[in-house]
Amino acid sequence: MDEWKEYKKKAWERIMRDKEIGYLDPDIFDVLEVFFKREKAYTQSSCSGRVSIVDSYLPWERKDSTVVYKNHITFSLEDLKDTISKGYVRRLWLIVQGPILHVYTKDQEEAWNIIKTARGAGFKHSGILTSNNKGILVELRTGVKMVHYLSPSLSYKELEELVGISLEVLQKGKEKLRRLKDSVASSIVDNPVELGEYSEGETKFHYSVG
Amino acid sequence: MDEWKEYKKKAWERIMRDKEIGYLDPDIFDVLEVFFKREKAYTQSSCSGRVSIVDSYLPWERKDSTVVYKNHITFSLEDLKDTISKGYVRRLWLIVQGPILHVYTKDQEEAWNIIKTARGAGFKHSGILTSNNKGILVELRTGVKMVHYLSPSLSYKELEELVGISLEVLQKGKEKLRRLKDSVASSIVDNPVELGEYSEGETKFHYSVG
Repeated sequence: MDEWKEYKKKAWERIMRDKEIGYLDPDIFDVLEVFFKREKAYTQSSCSGRVSIVDSYLPWERKDSTVVYKNHITFSLEDLKDTISKGYVRRLWLIVQGPILHVYTKDQEEAWNIIKTARGAGFKHSGILTSNNKGILVELRTGVKMVHYLSPSLSYKELEELVGISLEVLQKGKEKLRRLKDSVASSIVDNPVELGEYSEGETKFHYSVG
Repeated sequence: MDEWKEYKKKAWERIMRDKEIGYLDPDIFDVLEVFFKREKAYTQSSCSGRVSIVDSYLPWERKDSTVVYKNHITFSLEDLKDTISKGYVRRLWLIVQGPILHVYTKDQEEAWNIIKTARGAGFKHSGILTSNNKGILVELRTGVKMVHYLSPSLSYKELEELVGISLEVLQKGKEKLRRLKDSVASSIVDNPVELGEYSEGETKFHYSVG
């Protein structure tokens, strides 16, 4: 098995492990799976889209920043009120982020094929991030994003509005994720790959032309 | 002159024209200039970062969307109040966007050099968007972004807060833009290019090793 295939195998094993322990985003497995079924692609560190509340002066900061709420599936007025009621250190930001996928491909041709397919499915901000021994790293990203400053003096009415709009934004991201899955699935025609399960220490990773 | 150089020349002429008629972002010229001084790079459709207010159901939409306020340099409580007081059709979104530059390079090596320099200057979300006869298209982008829903029931205090935070976000983008300019400028060592002016219909585009 060549080096690239070895990386792909390890990436799949990790996904199965993360799935087992509940570490994987709950609604992303079937999307990742369609990428692995392509002969020349595998995914890494992907996010299905989520609502989060972050305590930081500025919303893109990593240090001096704490995630105080995170949910990939839903969001409620109770969630928002509970989180706000706990107070804050810096500022609170309500961030709704669309899906982001990182795909390694074996060559440039496959990278551009995937980017083209993804753009067609609404992942307009897709491109190549880097190229290393793991392959060509492609980021698939939509424009779906809300980065809302939560003032300490928000009214009940504003909180209600914010939850409704956040759910709408989250939902738009999920729709695009489903479209991506369908587009990638229907683009696999030549060389679908059958994925083995990681079980009891022994790894099966079968390729078969189906 | 080869095809790529011809595109670079035309891009420079367009920048000089846009500058003349006030179409260019007021604080971006010197940044674009340092890219043109690299032998294998030129820029296209770039933005220095800005505050805008958009009337749309969702902030990333292009159709069913109207920009009702836009400023690359500053933002005030008066600007915000005036804009809000005019009412809206869908929803109002206050969007503060960091700088985004599009750079065409002659080859992959130059593309990766620029991406590496840009990441070092805080343009963490940089990558290759496409590759065509104009060159390799690189997008340089920071994580600086705020996408804030403007509720119709905002208090005076919240409006004040929002203006302060927007200016802070805008400023962070400008700082990164200055860092980018300095990094790119100091990376030009081997082959600086002297740029001619576009004047009276005649175009001079001198390359000289300085």
